[in-house]
Amino acid sequence: MRMYDLIMKKRNGGVLSREEIEYMIKEYTADHIPDYQMSAMMMAIYFQGMNADETVALTMAMAHSGDMMDLSAISGTKVDKHSTGGVGDKTSIALTPMVAACGVKIAKMSGRGLGHTGGTIDKLESFEGFSTGISAEHFIDQVNKIGVSIMGQTADIAPADKKLYALRDVTATVDNMSLIASSIMSKKLASGADAIVLDVKTGSGAFMKKEEDAFALAKEMVTLGNMAGRKTIAVVSDMDQPLGCAVGNALEVEEAVATLRGEGPEDFTKLCMTLGSYMLIAGGTASDEEDAMRKLKQVIEDGSALNKLAEFVQAQGGDPNAVYDTSLLPKASIVEEITSDYDGYISKIDCDEIGICSLILGGGRETKESLIDLSVGLILHKKVGDHVKVGESLATIHANDPDKLNAARDRFLKAYHFLDHSVQPAALIKGIVRE
Amino acid sequence: MRMYDLIMKKRNGGVLSREEIEYMIKEYTADHIPDYQMSAMMMAIYFQGMNADETVALTMAMAHSGDMMDLSAISGTKVDKHSTGGVGDKTSIALTPMVAACGVKIAKMSGRGLGHTGGTIDKLESFEGFSTGISAEHFIDQVNKIGVSIMGQTADIAPADKKLYALRDVTATVDNMSLIASSIMSKKLASGADAIVLDVKTGSGAFMKKEEDAFALAKEMVTLGNMAGRKTIAVVSDMDQPLGCAVGNALEVEEAVATLRGEGPEDFTKLCMTLGSYMLIAGGTASDEEDAMRKLKQVIEDGSALNKLAEFVQAQGGDPNAVYDTSLLPKASIVEEITSDYDGYISKIDCDEIGICSLILGGGRETKESLIDLSVGLILHKKVGDHVKVGESLATIHANDPDKLNAARDRFLKAYHFLDHSVQPAALIKGIVRE
Repeated sequence: MRMYDLIMKKRNGGVLSREEIEYMIKEYTADHIPDYQMSAMMMAIYFQGMNADETVALTMAMAHSGDMMDLSAISGTKVDKHSTGGVGDKTSIALTPMVAACGVKIAKMSGRGLGHTGGTIDKLESFEGFSTGISAEHFIDQVNKIGVSIMGQTADIAPADKKLYALRDVTATVDNMSLIASSIMSKKLASGADAIVLDVKTGSGAFMKKEEDAFALAKEMVTLGNMAGRKTIAVVSDMDQPLGCAVGNALEVEEAVATLRGEGPEDFTKLCMTLGSYMLIAGGTASDEEDAMRKLKQVIEDGSALNKLAEFVQAQGGDPNAVYDTSLLPKASIVEEITSDYDGYISKIDCDEIGICSLILGGGRETKESLIDLSVGLILHKKVGDHVKVGESLATIHANDPDKLNAARDRFLKAYHFLDHSVQPAALIKGIVRE
Repeated sequence: MRMYDLIMKKRNGGVLSREEIEYMIKEYTADHIPDYQMSAMMMAIYFQGMNADETVALTMAMAHSGDMMDLSAISGTKVDKHSTGGVGDKTSIALTPMVAACGVKIAKMSGRGLGHTGGTIDKLESFEGFSTGISAEHFIDQVNKIGVSIMGQTADIAPADKKLYALRDVTATVDNMSLIASSIMSKKLASGADAIVLDVKTGSGAFMKKEEDAFALAKEMVTLGNMAGRKTIAVVSDMDQPLGCAVGNALEVEEAVATLRGEGPEDFTKLCMTLGSYMLIAGGTASDEEDAMRKLKQVIEDGSALNKLAEFVQAQGGDPNAVYDTSLLPKASIVEEITSDYDGYISKIDCDEIGICSLILGGGRETKESLIDLSVGLILHKKVGDHVKVGESLATIHANDPDKLNAARDRFLKAYHFLDHSVQPAALIKGIVRE
């Protein structure tokens, strides 16, 4: 078999066999196929697409390119959760203790974020001492003991995907549905959970700007997960404006903690309840949505979800006191209000721009090597549909550098759009995709 | 400017500006753009194409990526000739002395062949001592003195094309009209001639299998040449069966010599006269086709074309006696007839297969490092439309190894197709493309 022939076949609209895809991924991972052939193949796939069989074969080949995590030492159904990402998405931090408090085992692998704000791991490091660099034994043991653990993704989970994604990222071959779906699902399958709940974002702040694309991706991933024998459900949710009010690492942790106390923003709470309910159903501890919602409300009301977060933080070396006293989380030195120059209704928030404000303040990574300032960010006080008066605060900005603060404020003000009549914000939950 | 953005632009159907193409070629030649980005770009171009402006910009950028040969020290109009290649294509060997004998200056750069038979340089090396590894000074001096020289292409003629072609060759991105045209024309423009006559082949033994593709390529190259200020004419000619009768290096030289004596095969003679007439017109020594044909016939009849070949061979270190006594050319040790098992008319000859017979005998290169056996090959006695009886010779095979001979004979016999009624061979000259 020659890679040249496979490129030619795909370029001419042919269908690659399972054997051909396995050969390609195996040899590429082993550095026997050069990057320049693989990037030509990725561009050919961008134009010619892959059918369902090819996508499954690619996903399985990438999942098996490294270690397949064995979670059989954990009793019961292990549930994983994945979000395609967005601005203000601190979902995992509130959701995992909620679900674990209901008795579902959460064994989750996370990556660091390369984007506007940090990833889940970065956010969790707002708890002093918290570490996701734990061993597989610690990980499994912790899930067995307290029902939840989040581990940093090891280098040997789907190394083919890691190598291929890095290549696609610099060759303009990222945005193809089959390639995106197989990239996400190969890691999830290798991570070993029995059930997977996916949060597929759509809107101006999401990778999938169009709702139809988000549904297509959701369907593709649900099919892949189920074909691989993992119960998979996807929630398509709005990312046309930031999720919740907090944007920035420690600020988002604070909002997640408030949510576990029942005091979170309405949209964020609703998303956690929705995703959580499917995790309970997938995990077998709730019979239906109604039952699941009731159980999730219960663990918030009785404080067991909050306590579970403290337990979880402590089990991974973090300071559990910060869960009960968020003044112990990293704090920025400058806190200022951003006030409105307009009188009217917020018609639109450029979601990506709010993310960039956080990046400017130091809350995200520009390169893999960047250090994140966990304390900085924004708390939005007004969202789409809200009324605002001149001089009223749109948001509170948390910064450690006056120049960065000014740059972020200027950018922030341009991201808000106003109308003199009321506007209905987009629905948060667009739909559920299951087999 | 970032290569990533250029790939994305082309992928999305955009038009690259001259500045963008110049940046891309300059930085790629300097190894500042990696192969994996360039191969993605080539695949994007394969799918999205390039318009006329982009193709001109690419051609000029590649032509200027290395040395631009300065032929101003040669008086008069310098004419170059290029063939897209095929089986039995010894045209340059007969054509250049014919045209030079008519007073047109031929300053031609050639490459070595990587294919069924050697390239023009390999064939000329059948004259013992002949070398194309001459200096630019020698080259220019020789053209001034005797009117003709062929020089090996130096590494610094269009190095961007060299690098890019090698990449396209392994990434299934060769067959795009704009890329093929710019690759050929960038080298021709850098080689410095004032006028260029192109022989674009079409048929089963050509790169362009379809006649319409050959005409499209011819038009593209003629436009590129003329836009760059070089008088450019293309002849589209048949390569559905081998050209002439000889296939193999020294055997082809012998046929070229016979043609200069007026004893060449009809098709090959006609092609030389046609290409030659446009070279005379481009070189300004003939007013029209009729005038040119008359002059070309004259130099064959009076022996001055043959003498010019001897002068040319001697000027580059070769033995001129072999021009007058071809028994001095390399000879194979085994010479056998291949006889027909059929009674009927030749309906079709698989042209590429005849080339492969020559390759099997040792007459071509499988890799860049292969050594060529100049003496081996085939002389066809029957071509499309000819009648043949059982036991009559189809061809004479010249070999140095009995096993290779047998393998080539088996393959040869499968390449000939028969019918019991007469067949008209395809027209040799399909058309002329000029501005």
